[in-house]
Amino acid sequence: MQDIKQALTLRADAVEARLDELLPLVSSPEGEVVEAMRYSALGGGKRLRPFLVMETAALFDVEENYALQVAAALEMVHCYSLVHDDLPAMDDSDLRRGRLTVHKKWDDATAILAGDGLLTEAFGVLADPKSHPDADVRLKLISGLSLAAGSAGMVGGQMIDLSPNRSNLDLTGITRLQDLKTGALIRYACEAGAILGKASPEEFKALSLYAEDIGLAFQIVDDLLDHESTPEETGKPTGVDSDAGKATFVGQLGLKEARSKAEKLILSAKSRLDIFAGKAQLLRDTATFVLERRS
Amino acid sequence: MQDIKQALTLRADAVEARLDELLPLVSSPEGEVVEAMRYSALGGGKRLRPFLVMETAALFDVEENYALQVAAALEMVHCYSLVHDDLPAMDDSDLRRGRLTVHKKWDDATAILAGDGLLTEAFGVLADPKSHPDADVRLKLISGLSLAAGSAGMVGGQMIDLSPNRSNLDLTGITRLQDLKTGALIRYACEAGAILGKASPEEFKALSLYAEDIGLAFQIVDDLLDHESTPEETGKPTGVDSDAGKATFVGQLGLKEARSKAEKLILSAKSRLDIFAGKAQLLRDTATFVLERRS
Repeated sequence: MQDIKQALTLRADAVEARLDELLPLVSSPEGEVVEAMRYSALGGGKRLRPFLVMETAALFDVEENYALQVAAALEMVHCYSLVHDDLPAMDDSDLRRGRLTVHKKWDDATAILAGDGLLTEAFGVLADPKSHPDADVRLKLISGLSLAAGSAGMVGGQMIDLSPNRSNLDLTGITRLQDLKTGALIRYACEAGAILGKASPEEFKALSLYAEDIGLAFQIVDDLLDHESTPEETGKPTGVDSDAGKATFVGQLGLKEARSKAEKLILSAKSRLDIFAGKAQLLRDTATFVLERRS
Repeated sequence: MQDIKQALTLRADAVEARLDELLPLVSSPEGEVVEAMRYSALGGGKRLRPFLVMETAALFDVEENYALQVAAALEMVHCYSLVHDDLPAMDDSDLRRGRLTVHKKWDDATAILAGDGLLTEAFGVLADPKSHPDADVRLKLISGLSLAAGSAGMVGGQMIDLSPNRSNLDLTGITRLQDLKTGALIRYACEAGAILGKASPEEFKALSLYAEDIGLAFQIVDDLLDHESTPEETGKPTGVDSDAGKATFVGQLGLKEARSKAEKLILSAKSRLDIFAGKAQLLRDTATFVLERRS
């Protein structure tokens, strides 16, 4: 676990530096929205999605500089979604990564605009030749992100999460919700590496299924942490979902069964990587990390 | 003026049909957000931006089917911006095009997500070969839209519009605000036609300047209508900006001078089109329409 933590930190630092470059401060009157975008994007975090882009791309010996650009674009989309989800009209969260959320530090309007800006500019980052010299690769990355983040993916998942029926969802319903809300972007992270690496259909599929397994496990572990942790450990309020009467994996399965399901998913995720043999060891360790993380 | 109104209606109908295709209803639980996206995008309106894409592309004999796809993508971005701008945290508007705004018909969360969905999917529409068979053209369209709609364009303009200094802006400040908030997307509409048509640098520049002139004139006329019209005529509340103490072109220049400035801009816009000779007649009529519109 030490190696994977070091690897995550190393990648996270590189992503932080690239985001800093991609979001330069401006002194003109609209600079305030750029500050809010930077506050959100440069706020640290595990950077799991960028890490997955970079490690899956590394399977195909993609130049790291390209993978980093794509990783940064994806992280911009992830950060936009956090800024919007935290708004009072949505999840109404005051804390994120142990700091005030954007709408608490500024206001709702700035948070809406900062999210809009991050989302808009992420596509520009992918369209730039710095993300890959091959135009078709860049277009595939853009199409994939649009699909994963739109109404058939992340936005659709958040819509279900806010629907009046949310508290009555059964296990199938919760699984689908999470597959859209968080799964789609995690899957895209791994597919982006495959796109950059011009993977074979078989390799693409393997990474896609790996991502699906760890994405679901990630969410189950989130529920477990929500039940078992303190706000100090996770950097955000805990017990929120169950307090809000939302159906969760833990609520449906119980603590023991939920943990067992997450463990099975992680085993399955690792087996998806067989075709990459030893080269995928860090991705296997990532799966373990998703299971064992404490925040 | 009769011809231009007919042309606008014809193009608007085609855009409406394409948007209807691009945003199919889904019956799954997240379908509600798609309904809200459709409500916003299919709500009619002048469709000025799509019209400009199509008419500028027509200068270069671009296949209409491609221009229509790009026009629809741009309109999705325009509609997302209206949905977010109408939110209580922003301009707090209850009416748009004579109907309830999305957050009044649904709620704030749905409006935020519907806007996010439209913005996200617009980039997917541009990445699709249906917008142009040439990958480099599609990437240029995507880069341009990202720049025009992001923090250095539309999002930045809205940020200035909401800033505490908004009421004290001088003429230069208001002009810059409008150049970002509405000008950037109108300019992009004309540049998109030039990109689709693989215009020469000289032709590209001419269309860009034409768009800049009509974009500013468009906003001055908006201010004039806000002072002179009734809500029945415009389909939205009037007198809003001046009542809110916002500095406007009319407030800075007076009614007469503001109208005179708009007229000069329209003359200038028409002169930009000289290199296209008779082929650009409909674009000249569009400039006249921008000046003489009553809603």
